[in-house]
Amino acid sequence: MSRAYFESIESYGRSTPLELEHVIPELAFNEQGLIPVIAQDATTKQVLMMAWMNHEALEKTLETQRMTYWSRSRQAFWIKGETSGHTQKLIEMAFDCDGDTLLCQVEQHGGACHTGRTSCFYLEVDNNAKQVFVQDK
Amino acid sequence: MSRAYFESIESYGRSTPLELEHVIPELAFNEQGLIPVIAQDATTKQVLMMAWMNHEALEKTLETQRMTYWSRSRQAFWIKGETSGHTQKLIEMAFDCDGDTLLCQVEQHGGACHTGRTSCFYLEVDNNAKQVFVQDK
Repeated sequence: MSRAYFESIESYGRSTPLELEHVIPELAFNEQGLIPVIAQDATTKQVLMMAWMNHEALEKTLETQRMTYWSRSRQAFWIKGETSGHTQKLIEMAFDCDGDTLLCQVEQHGGACHTGRTSCFYLEVDNNAKQVFVQDK
Repeated sequence: MSRAYFESIESYGRSTPLELEHVIPELAFNEQGLIPVIAQDATTKQVLMMAWMNHEALEKTLETQRMTYWSRSRQAFWIKGETSGHTQKLIEMAFDCDGDTLLCQVEQHGGACHTGRTSCFYLEVDNNAKQVFVQDK
């Protein structure tokens, strides 16, 4: 069980690297075979979007350094920027303690959001006024 | 359908705020009634963790400013830091363009990870060496 695997490596340190090909099969892909992926701008540190990868999309991403997601609505691979030109180049990748989420530092060309905005997280909650502000495009 | 709702507000701007109580019911909670939540350190911008909230956990978080998740393994509310003391205070919250992910800027006390590390994303992929390095504690 993957959780036990990730628990077993918790106290490892940098001096004990693991083989990537041994870790990937332990990742906690969900019932649909998907894992959530957070894309963060490697330079500005702004969180750009959250999307999903299946095992093959992850392998393609590592192989090509082009962020390749699995589109749940289209049920197809989604090479970010393939149609818009707003590509994402993989700079760094990390897995979390449970092996159930990926964090990718990316070099983002153009807006990450399909609306043209830099980040998909453009709906800002004002918790005092109990309102949501939509960032201007 | 929530997707249509979020599409309908895409071209709004800051001059047209929405009522928070109208937006929250449109959020795309999944089949288990959960939505993924990214916690980012409001100061350092480091991504700390990804966890899940249900509708009630979201309301509790907004009400108390203490990050309150839904633990899928324990099937219970999980007020971050309640046992460890490593609390997370909500500073800012944003929804994404599909209304299916939350991004929270937090003030983190102590390590966000149960291992004591600052961030849960401590398994660093070295894509050239095809190895995974475990950050030291």
